[in-house]
Amino acid sequence: MNSISVFYLLLWTGVSSFKFEDLAQYVSTHEEDFIETLRKWIAVESDSSDITKRSDLDRMMDMTAEKLRLIGGRVEMIDVGAQALPNGSTIALPKVVTAQFGSDPSKRTVCVYGHVDVQPAKKEDGWATDPYDLTEINGNLYGRGASDNKGPVLAWIHTVEVYKALNIELPVNVKFIIEGMEETGSNGLDEMIVAQKDTFFSDVDYIIISDCVWLSKRPAMTYGTRGNCYFFAEVEGPKKDLHSGVYGGTVIEPMTDLIGILDKLISPSGKILIPGIREAVAPLSDEEWKMYQDIEFDVESYKQEIGVDELMYSNKVDLLTHRWRYPTVSIHGIEGAFSSSGSKTVIPAKVIAKFSIRQVPNMDPAMVEKQVTEYLQSVFAKRKSPNKLNVTMIIGAKPWLADPTHPLFEAGKAAFKRVFDVEPDLIREGGTIPVARTFQDVTGKSIIMLPIGGFDDGLHSQNEKLSRHNYIEGTKLFIAYLHEVSQIKKY
Amino acid sequence: MNSISVFYLLLWTGVSSFKFEDLAQYVSTHEEDFIETLRKWIAVESDSSDITKRSDLDRMMDMTAEKLRLIGGRVEMIDVGAQALPNGSTIALPKVVTAQFGSDPSKRTVCVYGHVDVQPAKKEDGWATDPYDLTEINGNLYGRGASDNKGPVLAWIHTVEVYKALNIELPVNVKFIIEGMEETGSNGLDEMIVAQKDTFFSDVDYIIISDCVWLSKRPAMTYGTRGNCYFFAEVEGPKKDLHSGVYGGTVIEPMTDLIGILDKLISPSGKILIPGIREAVAPLSDEEWKMYQDIEFDVESYKQEIGVDELMYSNKVDLLTHRWRYPTVSIHGIEGAFSSSGSKTVIPAKVIAKFSIRQVPNMDPAMVEKQVTEYLQSVFAKRKSPNKLNVTMIIGAKPWLADPTHPLFEAGKAAFKRVFDVEPDLIREGGTIPVARTFQDVTGKSIIMLPIGGFDDGLHSQNEKLSRHNYIEGTKLFIAYLHEVSQIKKY
Repeated sequence: MNSISVFYLLLWTGVSSFKFEDLAQYVSTHEEDFIETLRKWIAVESDSSDITKRSDLDRMMDMTAEKLRLIGGRVEMIDVGAQALPNGSTIALPKVVTAQFGSDPSKRTVCVYGHVDVQPAKKEDGWATDPYDLTEINGNLYGRGASDNKGPVLAWIHTVEVYKALNIELPVNVKFIIEGMEETGSNGLDEMIVAQKDTFFSDVDYIIISDCVWLSKRPAMTYGTRGNCYFFAEVEGPKKDLHSGVYGGTVIEPMTDLIGILDKLISPSGKILIPGIREAVAPLSDEEWKMYQDIEFDVESYKQEIGVDELMYSNKVDLLTHRWRYPTVSIHGIEGAFSSSGSKTVIPAKVIAKFSIRQVPNMDPAMVEKQVTEYLQSVFAKRKSPNKLNVTMIIGAKPWLADPTHPLFEAGKAAFKRVFDVEPDLIREGGTIPVARTFQDVTGKSIIMLPIGGFDDGLHSQNEKLSRHNYIEGTKLFIAYLHEVSQIKKY
Repeated sequence: MNSISVFYLLLWTGVSSFKFEDLAQYVSTHEEDFIETLRKWIAVESDSSDITKRSDLDRMMDMTAEKLRLIGGRVEMIDVGAQALPNGSTIALPKVVTAQFGSDPSKRTVCVYGHVDVQPAKKEDGWATDPYDLTEINGNLYGRGASDNKGPVLAWIHTVEVYKALNIELPVNVKFIIEGMEETGSNGLDEMIVAQKDTFFSDVDYIIISDCVWLSKRPAMTYGTRGNCYFFAEVEGPKKDLHSGVYGGTVIEPMTDLIGILDKLISPSGKILIPGIREAVAPLSDEEWKMYQDIEFDVESYKQEIGVDELMYSNKVDLLTHRWRYPTVSIHGIEGAFSSSGSKTVIPAKVIAKFSIRQVPNMDPAMVEKQVTEYLQSVFAKRKSPNKLNVTMIIGAKPWLADPTHPLFEAGKAAFKRVFDVEPDLIREGGTIPVARTFQDVTGKSIIMLPIGGFDDGLHSQNEKLSRHNYIEGTKLFIAYLHEVSQIKKY
């Protein structure tokens, strides 16, 4: 036990009054009701990326608010403004739903964040079932949003509902903040968090996010996410696209220049070639290496999932660390060049490469922007091209990292132990969940990511699912977790 | 004068009976009629790339046939089969129109090739006028197809028409072959040429193509075109696109591999790095260098046209030779990667680069295919990537090169001298006109490209035009040219 976790002390008098068995029993007997609610939520095509579905999304926010009201919450629907559309017009953003259950100043207050919008999904994309008709096959509940994030949000709502139904006092005050634009960049949310910093968030102790998944069959808690610096590198030459037959050989082609500088970003073995980037990364301690070594992760299954024979590294620790705690460069594509099937004999006049560098402690996006820009400009200068290179960083999202020995995680361990009878893995996430960093920076509260989704849930993919087991036992986990959090000594 | 051109001898008795002034006078007095016909042809949106316009294109072929019949031609409309559509269905190709005027075995027989389909054009693309409503501004006739190729085709038809109207016997037999799929790859034409080799083409002496433009304000004749080897280089890795946050750092990304091999095709200074390519190029003789030196070409205007401050070479001969008689590599784009505006955090699973190498004598497409494939595979092998590289050549079009001292070109010089009172430039074309090479390979006939379009006609671009002067004087040029060709001694 380390210096922080000694503060985590069970109050034994409290434990004796925790009627976990009664609460868990209620969940089990109402299993079908909970699945029925999930079915109703999945049936709403709340795709935030498609503005023609905005009325469905608005209805989804109303249903969320209604459900929270029904179980006794003090609910508000916060107007977060409008979204600008490419054609110049605007459309109202879906309201953000907040709810409050209890305001006892002697209790801890947790705030559960989640979202009820979904990624696009069509049967034709390769779904075995209708993505908006929750279908159970072999214990899995298939449907768009089942795991990301309607299922986990409902598990949290049911958690409160069960306490209420059994007339058992909630051990902590519970707040909710549920948005409808997560899949499209959480438009309006940052401003809302900043605006409510000293009101809604003032009495919040901890923020809980259940918008991620386990790494393997073994349950997990997430204590970090990578950030992301997303770059546009634009090379501009002739004033218009040219015919490659007529002009080829006389013109210094922007595409050749762009390929030339992109090739200098990362080596075939994955080494980032931009000076200063690797030096900024926090060194891996022996203790951390040991943590990685203990994580349940099967390299062969990972290969199979991706469909490759060989990965960048062959051992577990190298793979996991390069997935979560080291930066990497991905080149996503090129705008302005020919990208259709077939052939076209064009010399594109202006091409824009899109690439991103995942961020980890102690990288600083402002510094990364400077390093990347200066490096690419110097590589480009060596080409002595008359074309113009313009490098811009359009996203600079910082990584989020929590202390995995914080009492919030100790509480999680106890809850997992009680419900799943297992020690959860402590994992990180290679992707970026910007709201975690925003919560941390704006509210200064401690945050935990407590997933109940399985490693094979297929988020953002075809045949997304949440298993019946994870949905129901996950609700029990949350019930146990609220109790464990209530036991964290104020210090 | 060289050994071939000594065979070009004027038959002075013939010259005296050539009533050029009468014929030219008729053209001048019927100028407005000829423009009116062009207006009717321009009004037909015969865009061969758009199958929804196929009925317009069919109508255009009918109009062409009708016009040729009206002036006494023996016209046929040749069925060249059907076009396969991406959805698996087929649509009939526009018929190829052939016509014959005279079959006197004592005369020379020329065959004029042209096309009456056009590139797409919309007012919104940036046209100052309606592209399908021929509009005259400052002596220029603006409209899609005005220069490419309806105007020159009509100039040829009017040439025959004028002889007929004045009841002057054509000095040569004239055949026409007019297609409607040139802008889309001349579908069906090669097979038709092969099929008619011993029938339609059996008595043809020379083939004339007027589907190109001058290089400057000075008239020009074209004696060569570059060929084109078009490649797809596909790198395939994971079985599906991956999220760059979740998987980035562990996967060897196909896009990085592809960028790595594309960067090895050509140096920043334009040197092709594929072994064997440069060695295959015919050396530039001193005589040829001198020819290039004499061509009228203003480097500054060329820069201005393209909109760049600097070109790959600074002097005229280097620029023209690299435009016409040296190979070059152009990278057109990448299929399968992210190519839209905005950002997407994707690791594309399969990416296909499209690039082409312009062909010149003595390159051989089959050898180029081998050189490129072996080189890219060897460069790729050094990366030790587990991804798969597949290189395929989808087009292997050979260059076309005529002897510019052939009597066909001497005849052209005489005609230009008579009508424009100037010695035309002898130029080549950087682009590929595959039909020229097909005519040469299949029929074995000599070919000349005799353009009347101006250097600034904007082929394939917005505001395409043909000047009234070039349209009318070009018709007179063709009238004079038929006479000059009739004077070529059979040898």
